[in-house]
Formats: sequence, structure tokens, C-alpha cells
Amino acid sequence: MAIEQGNIFESLPEDISKEIFSELVRGNNFKIERIVSKGHYSPASGWYDQADNEWVAVLKGAAKIAFENGEEVHLTAGSYLTIRAHTKHKVTWTTPDTETVWLAVHYNE
Amino acid sequence: MAIEQGNIFESLPEDISKEIFSELVRGNNFKIERIVSKGHYSPASGWYDQADNEWVAVLKGAAKIAFENGEEVHLTAGSYLTIRAHTKHKVTWTTPDTETVWLAVHYNE
Repeated sequence: MAIEQGNIFESLPEDISKEIFSELVRGNNFKIERIVSKGHYSPASGWYDQADNEWVAVLKGAAKIAFENGEEVHLTAGSYLTIRAHTKHKVTWTTPDTETVWLAVHYNE
Repeated sequence: MAIEQGNIFESLPEDISKEIFSELVRGNNFKIERIVSKGHYSPASGWYDQADNEWVAVLKGAAKIAFENGEEVHLTAGSYLTIRAHTKHKVTWTTPDTETVWLAVHYNE
């Protein structure tokens, strides 16, 4: 069972020059990953357009996600959001001085 | 989109005389729920025996989960664990004076 347990807030990577994605568990139609950001945001042009639904939560730090329709959501510790498949979005801001730790659950219907 | 966002640490129930289960999102083979405990634990006899896999994380507080094979796991903030279907387990302890907030993801393979 050892490899199936861990701590979301531990083993944070030392080098966060890029966002770090770690898969925590995977099923056939389903994946949970941890994302660690530090001041990262999406490129100014273009949108994420994902085939799967994503339920995303910020567990530490803070972030902003913008949607193609002009909405912007500010996420702080504990905030969660469901992003349906093909809802175009981008990360416009994450805390620059501290890590932002996300939990992202990708799933089909 | 309003109903699809929220905060895991907010809207904690005032009456926690029983554990509180709140469904955050659901798919066809998949469910995420928040559980709020405060000193609760499973009955001394009997085990949880679930048909689905469960990925569970403690986000606040602390808890202990025991398994039929004698193993006991101590979970603190950030700890996560995958409990495969039909792995018999029980919650033996949660923090009595403060809320323990869990995130539980139930999924088929």
C-alpha cells in the first residue's frame, strides 16, 4: 500500500522554474494530479481546450482563471471549480512569492 | 457556472453532531465529496466494505484509518491514501476539538 499514500503539501519540488505536474492516482477514465505553480500563468494568447472535464481546487496559495466569455474567477485556499470539457480557459495569475498547490481531477462523464 | 464553484473550507456546518457529507461534483462513474468530522469514528465492530475505489485526503485536522490486516495510517493535513474496492477499513480517530475536513473521490476503475 506504501506507494498509494503521500502528502499533497510535502515533497514540493525545489526547482519550480516550470509548473510541476505529479500524478497521484489514475483510473480508466479518471486522473488526479497535483500541480505546483509559483507565479506561472498561461501564455497571453490561446486557451486551454480540454477533451475531459476538470474539477480543480486550490489548496494553498491563490490563482486566477479566466474564461473565453470574459469571466474571471479568483481562487484562494479551498476554492474549487468545475471546468466542463471544451470550456476554454487559462490561468492568468498565481502567487509569485509562494507556491500555489492545486489538485486537479480529470474525468469523463 | 455559479453552482459549480465553492470553497472546501467554507460553509462548514454548525451542527457536527454527526459527520457531514456534501457532494461537490458527480459523473457517471465518479463522485467527489467533502466530509466534515469532529471526533467521529466508525463503530467499534464492523468494517467499511465499499464496491468502489476511494481516494481520500485530509485537508484540515487529522485522522486515523485502520485496515482489517492490522495496519493503521495516521493522516494529517495534506495526507492522501487510495483505498481499493473491498479493502475493509474504518476510521478509528478524528480530531475531537477541531473539524477534520476530508476530500473523498469515489471511482470505478
